[in-house]
Amino acid sequence: MSVDRLIDAIGEKKNPTVLGLDPQPEHIPPEIMKKYIAERGRTLSALCGAYETYITGLIEALSGIVPAVKLQSAFFETLGPEGMGVFQRGIQTARAHNLYVIADAKRGDIGSTSSAYSAAFLGRLELGGTQFPVFDADALTVNPYLGSDNLEPFLMDCERYQKMVFVLCKTSNPSASEVQEQTVGGRPLYHIVAEQVSAAGKRLTGRYGYSSAGIVAGATQPNSIRTLRERHPELFFLVPGYGAQGGTAAGLAAAFDKDGRGAIVNNSRGIGCAWQRSGKRYTDAAREAALTMREDLRKAINP
Amino acid sequence: MSVDRLIDAIGEKKNPTVLGLDPQPEHIPPEIMKKYIAERGRTLSALCGAYETYITGLIEALSGIVPAVKLQSAFFETLGPEGMGVFQRGIQTARAHNLYVIADAKRGDIGSTSSAYSAAFLGRLELGGTQFPVFDADALTVNPYLGSDNLEPFLMDCERYQKMVFVLCKTSNPSASEVQEQTVGGRPLYHIVAEQVSAAGKRLTGRYGYSSAGIVAGATQPNSIRTLRERHPELFFLVPGYGAQGGTAAGLAAAFDKDGRGAIVNNSRGIGCAWQRSGKRYTDAAREAALTMREDLRKAINP
Repeated sequence: MSVDRLIDAIGEKKNPTVLGLDPQPEHIPPEIMKKYIAERGRTLSALCGAYETYITGLIEALSGIVPAVKLQSAFFETLGPEGMGVFQRGIQTARAHNLYVIADAKRGDIGSTSSAYSAAFLGRLELGGTQFPVFDADALTVNPYLGSDNLEPFLMDCERYQKMVFVLCKTSNPSASEVQEQTVGGRPLYHIVAEQVSAAGKRLTGRYGYSSAGIVAGATQPNSIRTLRERHPELFFLVPGYGAQGGTAAGLAAAFDKDGRGAIVNNSRGIGCAWQRSGKRYTDAAREAALTMREDLRKAINP
Repeated sequence: MSVDRLIDAIGEKKNPTVLGLDPQPEHIPPEIMKKYIAERGRTLSALCGAYETYITGLIEALSGIVPAVKLQSAFFETLGPEGMGVFQRGIQTARAHNLYVIADAKRGDIGSTSSAYSAAFLGRLELGGTQFPVFDADALTVNPYLGSDNLEPFLMDCERYQKMVFVLCKTSNPSASEVQEQTVGGRPLYHIVAEQVSAAGKRLTGRYGYSSAGIVAGATQPNSIRTLRERHPELFFLVPGYGAQGGTAAGLAAAFDKDGRGAIVNNSRGIGCAWQRSGKRYTDAAREAALTMREDLRKAINP
C-alpha cells in the first residue's frame, strides 16, 4: 500500500514533515529572478525558469531531511501550460530523489470526469492499449463535495497503481467552518466526510493499520485533529497550517498515534521563504528551518 | 457585469445552451484520430492534436447556434502540459468566435492559493507591474467546501476583470446527495451553500437582477432546481446533466424565470458525440443535435 511507503519514508528520516512547494514570485530569491528575467525578459516563461530552479534547489537541499514533498498545483497552473511542465518535472525530480510526492490539486468532479483527473495525477491515460503516465504523483488531494462517485475513480487508481489520496475533511483556512462545521445530526459535517472516506478506503488498509485513503486535517484546528484521531485510528492525516498559518507542534501532536505514526505535517513558506528572515542562501536557510521543524515535531510527538 | 453579457448572448441566439467540450479518446471521429496517429504515432501529442482539431471544428460549426461553450479542464489536464495548451487555445478560439467561455475546473483552496487559481482562470498574473492573462476564461466553476475565503479571491477578479463564477451547489451526479443533501437545521446543506453564494455575490448584481456569482444546479434534480429558483431569484444557474446524464427539458424548465432568463444548460456528449448515432460528419451531426436541443428547450421554457 502506498500509505506504507509513506510511513516507512517518514520512519527512515525520523521526520513527519512534508516540504510544501508553493512557489510565488515573492518567494524567489532575487538572484534567481534576475537571472531568468535577463535571459527571458519579464515574461511568464522567466517565472517558469525561476520556479523550476527554486524548487529543484529546495528538493536537492532537503532530500536527506524530509521524506515527502507536496506541490501546490495552483501556483504552477497560474503560469499556464509551461507552468504545468514545471509541475510535471518537479514531481519527476522529487521522485528521482526518493521523495514521496503529493500533488495538492484538490480535484473533484462527477465520476467520468474524476477518472480523467485520476489518470492525470495518479494513474495513466490509456490510448489504444498503451498506457501513458502523466503527472504521476504518489498521492493527490481530493475534494469531497461531490460524494462517492467522485472519490471512487481515485480509489481504483490507488489500488491499481499503489497510490494514495487525501480527502479534504477539516481544512486549515479561517472560513473552513462555514461548510465543514455545519451541524448534521448533532455532529459537524466533516465527521461525516471522515466516515465516508473511512468506509470507502477500507480495502486500501496497509500493514500499519492505516488506509491509503487519508484525509486533510488542518493544524490550526487542534480539537478537530484530536477528535478525528480518536474516532478514526485508520485514517492517515495530511496536516497543513503549521507555521505561517498559525498551527503549532503542540496543537497537532494529537494527530499521531502512540507509535508516533499517523500524520505528515506540511510546511511551505516556513521552509521555502526562510531565506527572507535569515539573509542566508535560500537552500541553507531552508535546511536550517527544516531541521528546526523536525526537532519541534519530535519534541511534541510520542514516542 | 459578466452575467449580463451571458444573458445578452443567450438572448441574441435565443438559445440557453452551453456546448460542453469534454473530449475523450472515444469521442473523436476515427478520421481525425487516424490523421494524428499517422503524424505523431500513438502518443499523448497525437491525442492533443486530435482534441484540438475536434473542438475547433465543434466551435466553428456551432458558433452561430450556441452562445457559450464550457471546457472541462480534466480532459485536457489528462494530456499533461501540452493538453493544457490545447485547453488554452480552445478558450481563445471560442472567444474569437464571440462565444462566452466557461472553464469547468471546479477549483477551491485556501485564500492565497485560490488567488493563484483565480489569476490562472479568470484574472491575471502580476509580475513586476506587468499583468499576464493566462487561461482567461469568462467564467469558472468553483467548489464551496473551503468556505468564503476560497470564494473571495474569485469574486474580486469577477469585479476587477468582469468575470463570473458558478459555485457547485447541487451537482448532477448520482452521489451528489451524500454531502450536499446532509440536513442542517432542517434543510439540505446545498441550500446553505446557495445562501452563502447569494450573500457574497450581491455586489456583482447586474441589470437583469442576476449576480455574476452563480451556482451549478444539476438537471437530474428537478425538485432542487425548482426550490433553488424560488428561493434565489438572483442566482444564475449553470445546469449540467441534460441528455446523457438523464436530465430533461421539462425537468429543468423551472430554472428559468418568467422572462425565460436565469439559466444555461450544458450538453457535451449529446452534441459532440452525435456523429456516433447518425453516421454523419461530426460537425453536421453536432449542428443538428444542437438545433434539436434548442427546440426542446424553447418548448419547455416560458415565455
